[in-house]
Amino acid sequence: MIYLDSSATSFLKPPQVAEAVFRSFNTIGNAGRGAHAPTLNASRLIYDTREKLAALFGTPDPSRIAFTCNATEALNTAIHGAIHPGEHVITTACEHNSVLRPLYLKEKEGTELTIIPADKKGRIRYDLLESSVKSNTSAIVLTHASNLSGNVTDLAFVSNFAKKHGLLLIVDASQTAGSLPINVVKMGIDILCFTGHKGLFGPQGTGGLYVREGLTLSPLKSGGSGIHSFDRQHPTDMPTALEAGTLNGHGIAGLNAGLDYILSTGVKNIHAKEISLARRFVNGISDISDLKLYGDIDAPLRTPIISLNIGNMSSASVSDILWEDYEICVRAGAHCAPLMHKTFGTEKQGAVRFSFSCFNTEAEIDTAIQAMHEIAE
Amino acid sequence: MIYLDSSATSFLKPPQVAEAVFRSFNTIGNAGRGAHAPTLNASRLIYDTREKLAALFGTPDPSRIAFTCNATEALNTAIHGAIHPGEHVITTACEHNSVLRPLYLKEKEGTELTIIPADKKGRIRYDLLESSVKSNTSAIVLTHASNLSGNVTDLAFVSNFAKKHGLLLIVDASQTAGSLPINVVKMGIDILCFTGHKGLFGPQGTGGLYVREGLTLSPLKSGGSGIHSFDRQHPTDMPTALEAGTLNGHGIAGLNAGLDYILSTGVKNIHAKEISLARRFVNGISDISDLKLYGDIDAPLRTPIISLNIGNMSSASVSDILWEDYEICVRAGAHCAPLMHKTFGTEKQGAVRFSFSCFNTEAEIDTAIQAMHEIAE
Repeated sequence: MIYLDSSATSFLKPPQVAEAVFRSFNTIGNAGRGAHAPTLNASRLIYDTREKLAALFGTPDPSRIAFTCNATEALNTAIHGAIHPGEHVITTACEHNSVLRPLYLKEKEGTELTIIPADKKGRIRYDLLESSVKSNTSAIVLTHASNLSGNVTDLAFVSNFAKKHGLLLIVDASQTAGSLPINVVKMGIDILCFTGHKGLFGPQGTGGLYVREGLTLSPLKSGGSGIHSFDRQHPTDMPTALEAGTLNGHGIAGLNAGLDYILSTGVKNIHAKEISLARRFVNGISDISDLKLYGDIDAPLRTPIISLNIGNMSSASVSDILWEDYEICVRAGAHCAPLMHKTFGTEKQGAVRFSFSCFNTEAEIDTAIQAMHEIAE
Repeated sequence: MIYLDSSATSFLKPPQVAEAVFRSFNTIGNAGRGAHAPTLNASRLIYDTREKLAALFGTPDPSRIAFTCNATEALNTAIHGAIHPGEHVITTACEHNSVLRPLYLKEKEGTELTIIPADKKGRIRYDLLESSVKSNTSAIVLTHASNLSGNVTDLAFVSNFAKKHGLLLIVDASQTAGSLPINVVKMGIDILCFTGHKGLFGPQGTGGLYVREGLTLSPLKSGGSGIHSFDRQHPTDMPTALEAGTLNGHGIAGLNAGLDYILSTGVKNIHAKEISLARRFVNGISDISDLKLYGDIDAPLRTPIISLNIGNMSSASVSDILWEDYEICVRAGAHCAPLMHKTFGTEKQGAVRFSFSCFNTEAEIDTAIQAMHEIAE
């Protein structure tokens, strides 16, 4: 089996991840719920993981990192917690439904929404940002990289724009955390939402958000906090403010091991390996007639995603053949990115998405190239 | 080490749980996000787990079970999703903050709230239920068993009461799922909220809720669903309606193994073992002078929780000595149950909570009894 679906979840992970989760069953109790070894082990593990996330994302204060069960929860927390009725918010056509659907809900509740379109290569129309600003614009919510096109957002530009107009900058790092350098301070990011089970190599059920100091979000959930139990309100101090109930300690143990791998290997090295595989793939298939590639394929900075179609073949058929005949895992369909598909005119056909991991080999890429030629013929 | 803190999390689990999680790293991708083996493995695993939960809780339709990351998320989903401003809701003094705090928040938003008190043994004042009903009463939210007293709620009585007045019955099964028989149909439960990491022996980061057919909750979160990607709204069909983003597949693999253990062992057998250990403990310590036991200790149906104090010793001191000198894990303090502590007059002292597992041994209980005598002297 050749796994080329890492943008859906990093099935290929450092072996230490599964081992760390397995070991945690013998070590951790419920964090912050007592003072015996298992509970303290859990608390230390969770704090240690916060520290590693803070180091990875360039914030000095680990308490500004809250854990969630996935990026979707982080994005819902950010959008519902920081954006209010009467405000105007800017987003883009490159977004995943985990950004769009919460924003559509806010729209129903009285928030104004502007969606900046993308050009035919899926590039955000940065030139339209300025004219979209209104007197009540409060935030811009956008992805660091499209999960369909692989295009990377020019966050330096967007951050300057946000700063100039005093807007909150909320970034969806689902496709980039662990595989592109992120520094929330230097990049001026107010809220960074990330998942644990993709580029961070953690188990499913992990993720979180960074919230800039001074910013308070109303939480999605309230409940047990292990502290201040006699207060009627859930504690407002980070990270407890956004972490009601028992955290996923076993999953966080695996995330911790994934972060160890990333911090010791280096994000830049991981990215370089992934991108070289993606470029090898593109070069290998470029002579296929009827090949349609989506996104800004020649951009100097990209994520290792190649989305394509062969002529008018349905994307589902191509991915089914890749699996049935070659045991190659890719993803077809809409990828929860409806406006990106509208941009590319692929609402009906969908697209076949190849997404590469630093754990893939050149031989695997060459097999995929061969498979694509055979299918196209 | 002797672990007597199973009400916080079941640190003692069938070994198959950790093994199943470990194995899942080699088998599952992202459920519902493609058609290759890893993604289908994940989908099947998750559906299979839904089926086992449906079997355990006595509902014929697995699609009525949605996964969450813990009971707190399930309770927030139930309370925010089913209760509206202008309605009146009944709850009890036996509740955990995961019920109380969401309800206090609803109160701020215009929901009326009545909290039925408990007597000195922590028993709900069922006789006050009838007079608490108003014309706008819409729901009763309460725990199946107190996490402090170990008292079990008379759900048959409450269910009849709810049915008589047309109220939604929302039950917090955090302390009972897996260790007391639950049949949502026979018990007339409309929404059952449960955690995975306690009596179900699953990993942390798992849990969920059963929602009766015909009942639609507005979800806490929206986002990617893998289906209907071009709709602006998150799908409203269960279980997708309440499951935005990637589920905790690795955690659910462990929960599945925990459920296998429970379904093959039998909830009644697990309960009998736990209760026999709890009774052995109570009998062993009953001659300690200055012993204060909380809850309805002699009730025929209880959960295996014994909360106590020795004279005026702080509960934290007793639990620290138990850990430091005997390596016995218990929990002191408030247990996120503020109104229960007010009922017992233990707001300042807290209580030492012993909670037993079917994996504890009689020898461990005897060591704990001996330790308690030595501390009391």
